[in-house]
Amino acid sequence: MSHATARTVLDQVRAAAPLVGCITNSVVTNFTANVLLALGAAPAMVDIIGEAGPFAAAADGQLINVGTPGPEQRGASMDAAVAAGRAGTPWVLDPVAIGRLIQRTALAHQLVKRRPTAVRGNASEIIALAGLGPGGRGVESSDEVESALGAARSIAERFGSVVAVSGPTDAIVSADRVARVGGGSAMLTLVTGGGCALGAVIAAFLAAGRAAGVDAFDSVVACHAVYSAAAEIAAENSSGPGSFQPAFLDALHGLSGADLDRIALS
Amino acid sequence: MSHATARTVLDQVRAAAPLVGCITNSVVTNFTANVLLALGAAPAMVDIIGEAGPFAAAADGQLINVGTPGPEQRGASMDAAVAAGRAGTPWVLDPVAIGRLIQRTALAHQLVKRRPTAVRGNASEIIALAGLGPGGRGVESSDEVESALGAARSIAERFGSVVAVSGPTDAIVSADRVARVGGGSAMLTLVTGGGCALGAVIAAFLAAGRAAGVDAFDSVVACHAVYSAAAEIAAENSSGPGSFQPAFLDALHGLSGADLDRIALS
Amino acid sequence: MSHATARTVLDQVRAAAPLVGCITNSVVTNFTANVLLALGAAPAMVDIIGEAGPFAAAADGQLINVGTPGPEQRGASMDAAVAAGRAGTPWVLDPVAIGRLIQRTALAHQLVKRRPTAVRGNASEIIALAGLGPGGRGVESSDEVESALGAARSIAERFGSVVAVSGPTDAIVSADRVARVGGGSAMLTLVTGGGCALGAVIAAFLAAGRAAGVDAFDSVVACHAVYSAAAEIAAENSSGPGSFQPAFLDALHGLSGADLDRIALS
Repeated sequence: MSHATARTVLDQVRAAAPLVGCITNSVVTNFTANVLLALGAAPAMVDIIGEAGPFAAAADGQLINVGTPGPEQRGASMDAAVAAGRAGTPWVLDPVAIGRLIQRTALAHQLVKRRPTAVRGNASEIIALAGLGPGGRGVESSDEVESALGAARSIAERFGSVVAVSGPTDAIVSADRVARVGGGSAMLTLVTGGGCALGAVIAAFLAAGRAAGVDAFDSVVACHAVYSAAAEIAAENSSGPGSFQPAFLDALHGLSGADLDRIALS
Repeated sequence: MSHATARTVLDQVRAAAPLVGCITNSVVTNFTANVLLALGAAPAMVDIIGEAGPFAAAADGQLINVGTPGPEQRGASMDAAVAAGRAGTPWVLDPVAIGRLIQRTALAHQLVKRRPTAVRGNASEIIALAGLGPGGRGVESSDEVESALGAARSIAERFGSVVAVSGPTDAIVSADRVARVGGGSAMLTLVTGGGCALGAVIAAFLAAGRAAGVDAFDSVVACHAVYSAAAEIAAENSSGPGSFQPAFLDALHGLSGADLDRIALS
Repeated sequence: MSHATARTVLDQVRAAAPLVGCITNSVVTNFTANVLLALGAAPAMVDIIGEAGPFAAAADGQLINVGTPGPEQRGASMDAAVAAGRAGTPWVLDPVAIGRLIQRTALAHQLVKRRPTAVRGNASEIIALAGLGPGGRGVESSDEVESALGAARSIAERFGSVVAVSGPTDAIVSADRVARVGGGSAMLTLVTGGGCALGAVIAAFLAAGRAAGVDAFDSVVACHAVYSAAAEIAAENSSGPGSFQPAFLDALHGLSGADLDRIALS
């Protein structure tokens, strides 16, 4: 993927304002919606039984994040995954903190069988989703990105998903490709929802990429490049995790092609 | 309504700190509470069965927003509407994204029959609440404010509500009056909850207006004028949707009579 | 407790990044997580039945805040309290707005019997938890801190908890000690979750204090000193409640020993 591709997909997000259905955890709903709005997408948090399925079928993209999976959200998540699959809506699974916590772990294993277009998580979550490890402690990873590449490949092969492993350098993996996106800012790890909101942005980029003729793998890489560039700009314009957050939203909103050229892809 | 009236109601909010019960969606609880606090009101999010009804009866104002209407919130919403009606607590209905989504649409139609003091929504939501159209796509309007005036009038006549239709220029409609409030900032549409928090502020202004001898219609107009003025000031003091949010809260907190004189009402 | 002790516990939080399980209200989840991250702790919001208990047992500290206690959270809260007690995890009870609201009042009375390591609330909440008064109106206190000292002492004696009463000057009370922490900023009362997030920070400081050989009482006082110092710095660097919030997170992140020396403890 070239910088030109990242710019193409970003421009498409801004031009078409894809409607992104989000089922996500209660900690990050607000930040996630603001991140999508700043980028030019149209978020809607529809996470109850009876509404989530039809909405996922009609949306341009869908996120399912299992971070606070109460009974209502578990039902809504399965409905949304089934409906998105049938309607062809690209969707993203974020298996937050799975491994030791039983409800979300069972739910994520059920969801991945519905063949998400993309899966995003930290190394421990991806390893746990592949059935190859016990998960991290809390929401943080106990494993390095590079140690999760086999697990990511396994998920990609079994379920056809593009798998994004987040870390200091992110790895994006499909059945036959790997890309890495570095840069960004560690400050993003000091804002809750930095990773969770990325999952929603992936859904927006999958929707926009499809409309622009960019495949799912390149759309996910483009998304990481954009997110990383915005984080770098925000880090330059802030003095701590508090001021980083508004600076990050401003950067996503104002990000230009010249900004994207500053990011190194490997 | 004159600027003097807007200032009177705002001063009353700050002097009396009306207690505003909020049943609202999980995306905007935090921002809504911060908006109310910045203005000088006292928010409390009480949204469970067994507590919501008694709280609405004792509060100075009440918001019911149907944005993430899980089963517990649906029950709490009906309890709060009934209790507010019996106790004479002024209350606001915000029919977020109704039309195609079945749970919230049914709930909003039930709630409006309890005769809310005010209804606030975008044009598509107001048209859907009047039974005159299918609603928007996601949380955004597919209709222009001016095309919703008949729907707003219909709701006002049937249920006695003041109906506020949000858009680039807001329209406030009762059975026999119409007012418009322009100005503001499109930046408010890039912050999730810009409209939802306005619904809570209307509840605070209805409570304060009553105490100050200002009727419901003028109180709702005053509220829009204040909100719009703060948005304009915030837009001048920010560089994107991220920095707009804290600037907006600062502006609500610091808003003066001189600031209000800058807003044009039609 | 000396400033040196506050610095010791803060350094330990930053060095060890204690994992803090949070069951808290939907209004403040995001801010609470960001406050913990800014300080160097590792938050995780695990608040459903089947997960909350095992998580509380494995965490370094646990918060249980009853601010939006739906049925799932009520079950999860009891599970977490029991599990924390058995595992020896230090935990904090925050009895938000108890008194007149029946669900949370009953829940808080059940929870305090599980002997929380610390209890944090405003004066009205502490008086209501001791069974000595009807609680405040909404989430704000109707009583002065000093008038709650007897109630705090009563809770401390019956349940072995350190009891922190928040107000313009905070009082920290055990069965045989009292300390006061002043300073801070009234701006913190204009940001929703200012008190709720403090409850989570107390859990982090209890965990870190234990690891550093500082007892629970001194850890709670240290926590208040740090929080108060950060609020003062933030107030100096902001122009309203909106800009105060990011400034507060930045201040928590950057707080130095020299900053702590500016706080007066009585």
